[in-house]
Order: sequence, then C-alpha cells, then structure tokens
Amino acid sequence: MAISHIDHIGIAVSSLENVMPFYEKGLGIPVKETEELPDKHLKVAFIPVGDTRIELLEPTSEASTVHTFLQKRGEGIHHIAYHVDDIEAAIAHLKEMGYRLLSDTPEIGAGGSKIVFLHPKSSFGVLIELVEGEGH
Amino acid sequence: MAISHIDHIGIAVSSLENVMPFYEKGLGIPVKETEELPDKHLKVAFIPVGDTRIELLEPTSEASTVHTFLQKRGEGIHHIAYHVDDIEAAIAHLKEMGYRLLSDTPEIGAGGSKIVFLHPKSSFGVLIELVEGEGH
Repeated sequence: MAISHIDHIGIAVSSLENVMPFYEKGLGIPVKETEELPDKHLKVAFIPVGDTRIELLEPTSEASTVHTFLQKRGEGIHHIAYHVDDIEAAIAHLKEMGYRLLSDTPEIGAGGSKIVFLHPKSSFGVLIELVEGEGH
Repeated sequence: MAISHIDHIGIAVSSLENVMPFYEKGLGIPVKETEELPDKHLKVAFIPVGDTRIELLEPTSEASTVHTFLQKRGEGIHHIAYHVDDIEAAIAHLKEMGYRLLSDTPEIGAGGSKIVFLHPKSSFGVLIELVEGEGH
C-alpha cells in the first residue's frame, strides 16, 4: 500500500457561492474549477494548495450524503482522500488487516479515477477515501 | 497573504496508541515523531504525507480543547493548518476583510512556530490555523 500524498480534503458547504470568496479573497487560494456531479447530487469547487486540494462540496438535492452530513453536523470538514497507486491492492490489504470498507470494489469518481471509502468506524471517526488516478 | 501548502491536518483521537497502528500498518504511512505539549495538555503524533502532515491529537487532561471536542463530537478531523510566509500580514489582511480570529496576535506553537486560529464562524464551520515557520 503506497500513499504518495493527500489527493484532497472534502469540505461540506451549503453554498459554493457563499464560501468561495473566503478561500479566494480571504486565504488567497484561488478556485481552479467547479464541476457538477449529477450522479452524486453535488456541485464541487477544486482549490489547489501545494500537492493537495481543498474540495468544497455543495449538495444539489436531499439525496446527497453531503446533505445528510449538513443536516446532522452543519458545515465543516467531511473527508480526507489519500492518493494510492493501486486501489485493488489497497482494498485487499485493508480487508486482510481487518479494516472495513464501504464497498469491496472501487467506484468510478471524478475524471475517471477509481475511489473507495473506508468505514469511519475502522478509521477512528475520520471518513477516509482512497483514490487511484488523476481526478483533476 | 501567501499560502504555499497545508502544514498539517489535526485529528482528535482518544488514544495515540490505539490509532497509530491504523496509519502505520493500515495506510502504510509511518509516524515520524511523537511529542508532549504540556501547555496545551496534548500528546501529538506527526505523520508526514506528501508536503503535509497528519497530526494526531490526544488530550492529556480535561483542560485541553481537544478533550471538549471529543466529548461533543467524538474522534474525527479537528482542524486544518495552512502555512503562511508572514503571519502578522495574514492577520492584518483577514481582519481588514472582516474575518474573525481567535486572537489578534500570534501564539508560539510547536517548534517555535507562530500560530493563530480563525473563528470557525468566519470560516464556514472549519477550524483553520495559520502557521508561520517550521513546526517540525
């Protein structure tokens, strides 16, 4: 299992439009692009910082898991995504070690990347995503 | 205001000893060092990943703000720390823009670095730290 860097940090927000000025003008880190992910009921803004990215996540319908998160906890940090070189090997390794994943096979994420989430009970309260490939 | 990279991501845990094996053996990212910060009532483990670090935070007494966080929300992501080149300039800029900080002057953090926190109400539910200098 080889993690080279953090791919992104996902942050749940009610409105990209309200939050982007804080990052762009307040912190001075510009949004690179925004994208609609209709399958996930999300609008996303990507903000590169060093070798990683902040990913602002705005739900577009109540079907989004980010909508549920906002209802329960309010705006805040949602997940950390680690970049792996071989996601199938990572899944096999974590299962063998007894850690729980939300799925046994990778899903296709943004930009054709392969992704999988660990169960937060296996990762001490942190929702962890593994990503293979270049999302953006 | 020039942010070059994310200095660290702080994660609140009940016990470093219980959580470190997940990062070291599960994710395969080794702990570089652990440190006691008696002033902050914390034991901390630093885990480098790419150009940033995971910082696991275990409270050593009920006086720690991380203890309060664990009582309220349980284990999970606590804050994001951005590296800035000039913290006084960053504070002046954010105040001028109308953002709230938890203090008007920097505190001394780990390794003699200068740190300040933004008020989470100004940063959309995310506790944000700014760091000038090399913590570790």
